[in-house]
Amino acid sequence: MMSNETHVQNGVLGTKVIAQIGILVNDIETVSQAYADFFGVEKPKWNWTDTVDKARTEYKGSASVARSKLAFFDMGSLQLELIEPDQHPSTWRDHLNEHGEGPHHIAFIIEGMKEKVSLMESRNMPLVQKGEYTGGRYAYLDTFKDLKIMLELLENDKK
Amino acid sequence: MMSNETHVQNGVLGTKVIAQIGILVNDIETVSQAYADFFGVEKPKWNWTDTVDKARTEYKGSASVARSKLAFFDMGSLQLELIEPDQHPSTWRDHLNEHGEGPHHIAFIIEGMKEKVSLMESRNMPLVQKGEYTGGRYAYLDTFKDLKIMLELLENDKK
Repeated sequence: MMSNETHVQNGVLGTKVIAQIGILVNDIETVSQAYADFFGVEKPKWNWTDTVDKARTEYKGSASVARSKLAFFDMGSLQLELIEPDQHPSTWRDHLNEHGEGPHHIAFIIEGMKEKVSLMESRNMPLVQKGEYTGGRYAYLDTFKDLKIMLELLENDKK
Repeated sequence: MMSNETHVQNGVLGTKVIAQIGILVNDIETVSQAYADFFGVEKPKWNWTDTVDKARTEYKGSASVARSKLAFFDMGSLQLELIEPDQHPSTWRDHLNEHGEGPHHIAFIIEGMKEKVSLMESRNMPLVQKGEYTGGRYAYLDTFKDLKIMLELLENDKK
């Protein structure tokens, strides 16, 4: 299994560069302002994730109308992402309801989403939610049992 | 207050580069092995934090004999730190008991620990725990109300 060997040598993802930390919040306006004040930066505008027709959001295997407000801060080489979910079921909403505000995931930029998701599922790291955004797609996988934090994969289209 | 103005312009810390993500675990051997396998890297050796006589550990204002096993992974430009606390009261043990395994803090490398801690305390971000390690010192501050995650400050001695 030459291809599998290669994966193991480079790790499952082919990268170990953390691109993003995602933090769940109840009020993105207030928390964005607090980050802006504390780190001495401009408060970024938040954006809604796309509607389900465009994002093709799937949560636990079914289409979901759930959306979140997102705001991004550049923190050195990675982004800190604030996430305020709406009330529809999603990994964001369910995690926030169960655990309260706080860290939700770390994200990695990968190539070959389908292959990486399959590889992780074969390691008992199930796909929890996926969707698309302008220029790419994301997937959240339940890596909590092994890694004690949720992982998000991000794949950006080649420009 | 010229000095304060400068702080606000550069943010409270004078940096926004996340140097570390700390994750609490119950079994550092097992979780280190899982990270090593998943990311295709060597399993690092864990180390105990120093004993209280050397680390001068203080938790909630009092000397504490609490220690943790620590293991570090290089993940791009930042470190991922696994933390397995002993049973004595500490921010590590109390957070693990209350929230279970998972993210505990993000850390920033700063200069002027006393000044930064004072500045944060004046913003209602109280010092929770502090201590020393070979070549530097750390402080955890309760930034949860504003930033929804604990911050750790690290100050390394000039070489």
